Amino acid sequence: MEDCIFCKIANKEEAAEIVYEDERVVAFKDIYPKAPVHILIVTKKHIHSANHIEPEDKELVGELFLVAKKVAKEQGVAETGYRLSFNVGRDAGQVVDHLHMHLLGGKKIPLA
Amino acid sequence: MEDCIFCKIANKEEAAEIVYEDERVVAFKDIYPKAPVHILIVTKKHIHSANHIEPEDKELVGELFLVAKKVAKEQGVAETGYRLSFNVGRDAGQVVDHLHMHLLGGKKIPLA
Repeated sequence: MEDCIFCKIANKEEAAEIVYEDERVVAFKDIYPKAPVHILIVTKKHIHSANHIEPEDKELVGELFLVAKKVAKEQGVAETGYRLSFNVGRDAGQVVDHLHMHLLGGKKIPLA
Repeated sequence: MEDCIFCKIANKEEAAEIVYEDERVVAFKDIYPKAPVHILIVTKKHIHSANHIEPEDKELVGELFLVAKKVAKEQGVAETGYRLSFNVGRDAGQVVDHLHMHLLGGKKIPLA
């Protein structure tokens, strides 16, 4: 998708502090961190939001969680705890219209 | 798992206000809602937390998102927005040690 910042990061057309990458997923530090550890884990495939996941995307979405496990361990929050969140639309403050998982850790995080 | 409240709900040994169910997934209202819409979407298979998802669970975890899409629509928050969150361990306030997705909507929800 032209003009999608996360597609650009996946394609190396925009800089990001990448902490993990494979053929289908890229993970990088959020530039406006809300917690000591705040990583975005993103499908390279452009999916608008969690509200746009289709049956053929199930296994890819599951893959995000395996990446999250690895990243949480590397970032030192696997034992202390972390939250994995997907924001959809206005009320959840979705800013970039490309499916992404927030991994937040390193402090106590209220649910809502 | 004996003594797991979400396994008991899945097996109909404990009551819950169920809003969706199929062979592999059950969704019900959180008894301590943190938002006007607060649904828990749970795998019937006992998985301890997102930190315990294995490669063979990927497609099942993806299935949770397809259920979330349906439930968000039925609950009237698909357009206004919602957050899907998985809590892992102490810092994220995981209370029940059985993989569950929180679907939160109906108000503005801060990320962290």
